[in-house]
Amino acid sequence: MPISGFPEWLPPQRMIEQFVLDKIRSTFELYGFAPLETRAVEPVETLLSKGETSKEVYLLRRLQEDDLSKKEDQLGLHFDLTVPFARFVVENHGKLQFPFRRYQIQKVWRGERPQEGRYREFLQADIDVVNRDTLPFHFDTEMPLVIGDVFKSLPIPPAVIQVNNRKVCEGFYRGLGLSDTAQVLRTVDKLDKIGPDKVAALLAETVGASDVQAAACLKLAEISGSDGSFVDRVRALGVTDPLLDEGLEELLQVVETAGEHAPGLVRAELKIARGLDYYTGTVYETQLRGYERFGSVCSGGRYENLASVGNTRFPGVGISIGVSRLLGILFGQNALGVSRSVPTCVVVAVPSEEQRADCERIATALRRRGIPTEVAPTAAKFGKQIQFADRRGIPYVWFPGEPDTVKDIRSGEQVEAVAASWQPPAADLHPVVTAG
Amino acid sequence: MPISGFPEWLPPQRMIEQFVLDKIRSTFELYGFAPLETRAVEPVETLLSKGETSKEVYLLRRLQEDDLSKKEDQLGLHFDLTVPFARFVVENHGKLQFPFRRYQIQKVWRGERPQEGRYREFLQADIDVVNRDTLPFHFDTEMPLVIGDVFKSLPIPPAVIQVNNRKVCEGFYRGLGLSDTAQVLRTVDKLDKIGPDKVAALLAETVGASDVQAAACLKLAEISGSDGSFVDRVRALGVTDPLLDEGLEELLQVVETAGEHAPGLVRAELKIARGLDYYTGTVYETQLRGYERFGSVCSGGRYENLASVGNTRFPGVGISIGVSRLLGILFGQNALGVSRSVPTCVVVAVPSEEQRADCERIATALRRRGIPTEVAPTAAKFGKQIQFADRRGIPYVWFPGEPDTVKDIRSGEQVEAVAASWQPPAADLHPVVTAG
Repeated sequence: MPISGFPEWLPPQRMIEQFVLDKIRSTFELYGFAPLETRAVEPVETLLSKGETSKEVYLLRRLQEDDLSKKEDQLGLHFDLTVPFARFVVENHGKLQFPFRRYQIQKVWRGERPQEGRYREFLQADIDVVNRDTLPFHFDTEMPLVIGDVFKSLPIPPAVIQVNNRKVCEGFYRGLGLSDTAQVLRTVDKLDKIGPDKVAALLAETVGASDVQAAACLKLAEISGSDGSFVDRVRALGVTDPLLDEGLEELLQVVETAGEHAPGLVRAELKIARGLDYYTGTVYETQLRGYERFGSVCSGGRYENLASVGNTRFPGVGISIGVSRLLGILFGQNALGVSRSVPTCVVVAVPSEEQRADCERIATALRRRGIPTEVAPTAAKFGKQIQFADRRGIPYVWFPGEPDTVKDIRSGEQVEAVAASWQPPAADLHPVVTAG
Repeated sequence: MPISGFPEWLPPQRMIEQFVLDKIRSTFELYGFAPLETRAVEPVETLLSKGETSKEVYLLRRLQEDDLSKKEDQLGLHFDLTVPFARFVVENHGKLQFPFRRYQIQKVWRGERPQEGRYREFLQADIDVVNRDTLPFHFDTEMPLVIGDVFKSLPIPPAVIQVNNRKVCEGFYRGLGLSDTAQVLRTVDKLDKIGPDKVAALLAETVGASDVQAAACLKLAEISGSDGSFVDRVRALGVTDPLLDEGLEELLQVVETAGEHAPGLVRAELKIARGLDYYTGTVYETQLRGYERFGSVCSGGRYENLASVGNTRFPGVGISIGVSRLLGILFGQNALGVSRSVPTCVVVAVPSEEQRADCERIATALRRRGIPTEVAPTAAKFGKQIQFADRRGIPYVWFPGEPDTVKDIRSGEQVEAVAASWQPPAADLHPVVTAG
């Protein structure tokens, strides 16, 4: 029985997922990110000490475990890849070269109530850069470029990365005279859910904001733009604060760098806050054009204080593609297809079981040259063997004989061929993933 | 802190693992196996109903779960990929084309006591073929060929696949007059651990074997060979039984097919039994030459009765590479190396922070042509930027200028270059994995 929140794809969908993962990985590697995997489990204290999602943690216990096992040994499944990565950096900092750039593509688990586009088990693809002591800001400008290249390599709708900077918000709130900036941020983050009136009321209630202060917070959240003009609109609100200046300068750098590399990819969006507590500057969220209602498919940000050893801090910046969510959305809309349901390019027909060894030799010769090949499962009538290929979308059937022939079962064309040299058109060699 | 039994590789080792996984996957796909992933969890009843390892299952519970949650909802982490695959086939049989060939490369978990070469979290790479009702035997002969091709593509010691067939053992025991063949099999399986005398004593004790019967069982277990001569040696023991005949015929087919495809790869080894209960015919175990003491790195077999829907059975045959165990053994002996610790081929040096945007443009031009490139993290002295590359084993440093130049930091050779057209030697483009 299917288990709610634990999606499983059929092989054609898994082939699309593999294609997407290959593109993600090769783009990450083009930018020099090194691969990493961390164990699926963390001590429960590590999980509970970071972020809001900790309440959705899955804990493990062995079936045969006695009840006396020590609480400090309690393990849970990781709910993201950032917290385990920070732990890994702390644990291995003596063996790593800094700045350390890594990518990590793994399943994560959250015991939340399943709903559309929310899974309990899902695949994330993260990149992060961490450094010892300080991390230059230009890495914050790099993250959207990598993600832009990933999305451009896939047959999917264009992505828009919305960027904000918590320093802008915190500086602005402080400049307004509101000191509990974290509470303001959390409240304004509810804007899309509860609307401006309720946010204003909540601001009055929780941080004692005046009407003017609440209105200014809401005005800031309205600002967005794909070029540097958002800075003037913030300035026009008349609030000044050094942290605000720093945040605007940083946010501008992200928007302008992306504007040169990939016009239209990045938009400053001053209402974006990200729920997780550990972000301290830049934050990213990403939506697919036409699929905005499904929420962010790629998120992240800058974190100054997630990892430290004694007095040494390891600040970082990272971004995470929600691969399962992205694919779940696109599969749900039949927005991705694949040209066949198996990797196989050629089926070698078997005239009789006595000739199976000869057929295997032909298959071996084709495979040696990189052509995915199966030998037909039984020496059925050739019509049935062709049907075997056709049902799977396999383009070619090979007929042993004197001479051998190979048939393109789409066109019906059949030609003489030699297993040691025949080559299919490059487009037929592997399954092709396309939009729609 | 490291957690015993949950290995984590540093990035260079993870790069080697990725290389190995890519080779495994491309070989599996050359044979037409389609990719599949199943969820990490199964209902605990599914896990407990199959095989001996069920006692090592990790159960899940949500941190916030009330104690009233129904027992039938209890989930556990899968301990292999065969049981989840059988469940998947039963669940989706209406949507699959049979015979169904799939590969599956995933982590599995077992809550056993960690010891050398035994992990609690480890990576397996499985292939299986299942069919409706009956599965032709020739698929049993195909499994070793696929695995042989995988191992041949890796810079590791040669592998020997030891094959047996439970029908040989069961038929032989029955022909001897011992009716509890499962108990005989379990007892003879202890041969390597407890020696022939204790096995003989146990056979007398548990199944009432006479000295002659026990001696015959031990003689059978001694037989092995890389060609068909093992059949004569079994016949010479003077036992006859139709199931024995069937098993010998099957085992001979596996040995002879492999003998043609890859001489030396497969050996009939009549003492191999495999612990798991679900195998019914062919069984495989694999050892690396020189690393026999570490046990099997690739095992599997034929299972007639693992999956069924009503009166329809889905028999299968499969084999599983223990990727973590294989790598753990080889890493432990420093038997695998990689030419650098990052994917990066070129570092673009940054003369001053003002020129960073120009450096990014150079990097973009190189990446567009598939050359993994990083821009130096800071505009430090060039000596330090070269050191940045050197410490990671990155072969090239690019110096922006008029004209640009690129330096092979291994040879010191520095030449003029244009980012839109320069190409490194193919051997330098990606990290190279080698033996030792």
